Amino acid sequence: MCGIVAYIGHREACPIILKGLKRLEYRGYDSAGIALLNGDLKVYKKKGKVSDLENFIGDQATHSHVGMGHTRWATHGEPNDSNAHPHYSTSKRIAIIHNGIIENYAALKTVLLSRGYEFHSDTDSEVFINLIEDIHTNNNCSLEEAVRLALHEVVGAYAIVVLSEDDPNQLIAARKGSPMVIGVGENEFFLASDATPIIEYTNEVIYVNDYEIVVIKDGKLDIQTKEAVRTTPYIQKLELKLDAIEKGGYEHFMLKEIFEQPRSIMDSMRGRLIADQNHLMMGGIREYANKFVAADRILIVACGTSWHAGLVAEYLFEEFARIPVEVEYASEFRYRNPVIRETDIVIAISQSGETADTLAAIELAKSKGATIFGVCNVVGSSIARASDAGAYTHAGPEIGVASTKAFTAQVTVLTLMALMVAEKRGTIENSKLRQLMVEMENIPAKVEQALKLDAQIQHIADVFKDVPNFLYLGRGYNFPVALEGALKLKEISYIHAEGYPAAEMKHGPIALIDENMPVVVIATKDSSYEKIVSNIQEVKARKGRIIAIVTEGDDVIPEMAEFVIEVPAADEALVPLVSVIPLQLLSYHIAVMRGCNVDQPRNLAKSVTVE
Amino acid sequence: MCGIVAYIGHREACPIILKGLKRLEYRGYDSAGIALLNGDLKVYKKKGKVSDLENFIGDQATHSHVGMGHTRWATHGEPNDSNAHPHYSTSKRIAIIHNGIIENYAALKTVLLSRGYEFHSDTDSEVFINLIEDIHTNNNCSLEEAVRLALHEVVGAYAIVVLSEDDPNQLIAARKGSPMVIGVGENEFFLASDATPIIEYTNEVIYVNDYEIVVIKDGKLDIQTKEAVRTTPYIQKLELKLDAIEKGGYEHFMLKEIFEQPRSIMDSMRGRLIADQNHLMMGGIREYANKFVAADRILIVACGTSWHAGLVAEYLFEEFARIPVEVEYASEFRYRNPVIRETDIVIAISQSGETADTLAAIELAKSKGATIFGVCNVVGSSIARASDAGAYTHAGPEIGVASTKAFTAQVTVLTLMALMVAEKRGTIENSKLRQLMVEMENIPAKVEQALKLDAQIQHIADVFKDVPNFLYLGRGYNFPVALEGALKLKEISYIHAEGYPAAEMKHGPIALIDENMPVVVIATKDSSYEKIVSNIQEVKARKGRIIAIVTEGDDVIPEMAEFVIEVPAADEALVPLVSVIPLQLLSYHIAVMRGCNVDQPRNLAKSVTVE
Repeated sequence: MCGIVAYIGHREACPIILKGLKRLEYRGYDSAGIALLNGDLKVYKKKGKVSDLENFIGDQATHSHVGMGHTRWATHGEPNDSNAHPHYSTSKRIAIIHNGIIENYAALKTVLLSRGYEFHSDTDSEVFINLIEDIHTNNNCSLEEAVRLALHEVVGAYAIVVLSEDDPNQLIAARKGSPMVIGVGENEFFLASDATPIIEYTNEVIYVNDYEIVVIKDGKLDIQTKEAVRTTPYIQKLELKLDAIEKGGYEHFMLKEIFEQPRSIMDSMRGRLIADQNHLMMGGIREYANKFVAADRILIVACGTSWHAGLVAEYLFEEFARIPVEVEYASEFRYRNPVIRETDIVIAISQSGETADTLAAIELAKSKGATIFGVCNVVGSSIARASDAGAYTHAGPEIGVASTKAFTAQVTVLTLMALMVAEKRGTIENSKLRQLMVEMENIPAKVEQALKLDAQIQHIADVFKDVPNFLYLGRGYNFPVALEGALKLKEISYIHAEGYPAAEMKHGPIALIDENMPVVVIATKDSSYEKIVSNIQEVKARKGRIIAIVTEGDDVIPEMAEFVIEVPAADEALVPLVSVIPLQLLSYHIAVMRGCNVDQPRNLAKSVTVE
Repeated sequence: MCGIVAYIGHREACPIILKGLKRLEYRGYDSAGIALLNGDLKVYKKKGKVSDLENFIGDQATHSHVGMGHTRWATHGEPNDSNAHPHYSTSKRIAIIHNGIIENYAALKTVLLSRGYEFHSDTDSEVFINLIEDIHTNNNCSLEEAVRLALHEVVGAYAIVVLSEDDPNQLIAARKGSPMVIGVGENEFFLASDATPIIEYTNEVIYVNDYEIVVIKDGKLDIQTKEAVRTTPYIQKLELKLDAIEKGGYEHFMLKEIFEQPRSIMDSMRGRLIADQNHLMMGGIREYANKFVAADRILIVACGTSWHAGLVAEYLFEEFARIPVEVEYASEFRYRNPVIRETDIVIAISQSGETADTLAAIELAKSKGATIFGVCNVVGSSIARASDAGAYTHAGPEIGVASTKAFTAQVTVLTLMALMVAEKRGTIENSKLRQLMVEMENIPAKVEQALKLDAQIQHIADVFKDVPNFLYLGRGYNFPVALEGALKLKEISYIHAEGYPAAEMKHGPIALIDENMPVVVIATKDSSYEKIVSNIQEVKARKGRIIAIVTEGDDVIPEMAEFVIEVPAADEALVPLVSVIPLQLLSYHIAVMRGCNVDQPRNLAKSVTVE
């Protein structure tokens, strides 16, 4: 996830682009850059925020009427000056900005290297622009045609803009998977990841469709499909306010991020799992395969929501890879004198990659010789750098303080890891592995389906919005989901919600239950279904108000529960990715109804970089 | 802990004793027995409750004016008919009932066996009566003198009554450590562990002191010290009601059990730890020393409060014995497919020894070849029997549903285990081990001191009795204490209290904190003291109401906290035994003030024998 902006018209391009990039910083902010056409093609880029780029440009000449800019959220290559966009081709005559992931970049790069192309960054995007240059040169075709042909070569997701010194009054763009909108002004055009950089200049926009190529040349807009079929652009009037657009039409970043999950889960699997090709591969695991195969124990260190993802991973790794797993609060781990051996693998989970306690915990584990494996969302973050190997979650920047899409991305990546390690260790039946791989690919669609419960959940939220307490119960794979559901509610609605393994309820918490206590029970069909039905009856016997998350078609629990939320069936090992969705929505709607600041709840910070 | 009753006078002894035993069943109920003198010395005894004994006696002849009875709480030997009291001597001419533990019984038994004495039980008490018979025969002295000399031989605690066929109108009793009260009627005497079996016949009582020997013969009472110095008995008038006496003068069993802890902790160490003799020995560990030395991993399975004791044990075993420990909810452990190896040791913790989930968890672990070590309070319970080895906690019967003394007894036993295993593995410095052994012996005195905080805590309880929510925070060894403190409050006051590792607060729960939220912080002086002071400041900055448990003399935290409770300093590894005391008292007083049924909180059961 990155932000892109481009301009072609009669105004000065640079200030428009810089201002637009600032609006898009919610999409990424690890580095930023700008390219301006004014006879030659100048690129300015810098690690950091857009304001760092501004300072860097300073008084340098920026006069131009055609330009493009990018604010980055790293996916390939750490955030630094050279990995920042735009990227030149080897000849430096053309340049690209790119939002997305090119999955087959490694293979393309090998070919391009053999043909003498040079690379100054670790990005997939630089491969893209050299591929375009290669086709442009070899086929002796127009740049537009070269772009079109290049799009047939790349696998993955992209929104790109390409500028060339040889066509000083032209801007070429294309998209697949990543968003792009064109702003249509008077003799000027704007192009951006969303409408926020555009809206103060024009309210007429065109949403570019997947596989479309946009050419704006000499004041004319032309849109064709990848197959070179011209399309008639549909111009729409924007009626949204700025801050709403920034949130993609959602009222809050958190809601936007909840709804992004089918996509962010898919992004986290992209290039790593292709079931019908029997492809399951993560670079970090492959590199350390022997360590994982020989591992006596896996220690997982994390805090907060990441710790919950770690609990899911414990169940996955123990069940499939048959390695004993211990999940530790990073803060507790680092201050006691834990037993750490050189044969231990420590998995550190952190969305920001900057969580101070987690970072300190892995430094401790490293000093004892353990292998550190980082699972972070922010590329090049401190934890990613301090790890021996790792896997990024590719959820894109998470702005809402209460983590949602980062959690499901973590669980996705940890699931793939566990399956890959299980395969390497020979501890999983081939048929089971295949079944789970196919199921994993279906998860985004099931999440999409679970998101359709929104209206129903809003109704339930309205019923319970004023209660002071909540209990959340789950067993097995749904136990961490219960903890996570409770944490979400706690964080944003300030309702005291607590999660428990369902069977532990009898050992104390059941005393809390009376006719005023809502109890959320995650009771999808799995191996402990009968047991959790008993737990529901125990709650009911004490008059607790039951909200049950059940598998579609369940006809037993609806007889007992006050409210039932049906989620699509999924293998029990994968069900957390689906069953957590209604809990995220429930906490969101309750918090909104209580008038809480959902995106910036009191007392909390997005990334806890203090101890 | 057992209950004893005796009678000598003009009434029928049997019904008085049986009725008295029923009153004392709170002291133990695993087996019961009665001895009656009527020319010969008859003993009736049976596994089970007093009602089982009654059924067993049925229509058998019980006419007698001198007798004694016992309701047992097993310490040596499982609960069965032969281990029930009274115990005959080998000649069957004398018999004993005994409440307490004879620590040097094994050595005494060896000598007695060599002299031809026979044993029909596994008890230390049968050793005691044979020792008396041996002295009686060899020294050719009176039974009274034989008892007196025997008391010089035994090490430990006792309240005993001895009857002899040769002295049909005599009753001899003695005590050290275990309670005993004499009821003085008209030409009749009663004797019991507390006044409940006596009060309906007389309100004049004499409390027997330690090291006193009581002889009632031909209607006369004579009390002498162990050194044969006659003392003048102090006759007091009872003004208490029956149910109050049963609870030892406390309003509730829970409070009584809280105040019993100096004693129950000492009982749990008795015979296992003698610091100045450098003695640290637990039978179950000695037997399985090689397993512990070679252990790759310890798995602890438990539920509720026992699970919290397990968390303390995790820290102890990792720090001192350097064995990786994983603590699991028994219910979660058994339903997933956990990795269990033959080199694993599974420690199962359960007060009742009947917890269904824990029992099922160890059956699973056993089936995979792991060694099972049970830590239970009830001798001969299902978990004790299902274990390969174990250590009893000797806390005595716990009647209050909310566990208090069982928790500290568990932690005591687990601490001794960790230290003994550390010594065997050579992972602890000798000087550190010595220091901790001495410190452990001082813990009961420190608990006694902490109990003096009662009045202050009552005041704090009054301030917070009406709040709906509480947070409990601790780090390191005090993190499980925070969980336990919260669970206690939840169980008996129905206030939603939740425990957290202090540093995790920033990752969510801090959102709950405002000027209405009481936050109990356990902040004794230890290696993370500075960090928890920062956590207190974070709470304070959000206007949370801080109740801090601190080390005596702390002059930093009192500046920040609304209430400060000072506990005696203790080594940080042992501090849970001290720091948990004020939390037990706080929950107790709040519950009482809220009018809750402290001993039988709603929805809960003492021992959870269902899944």
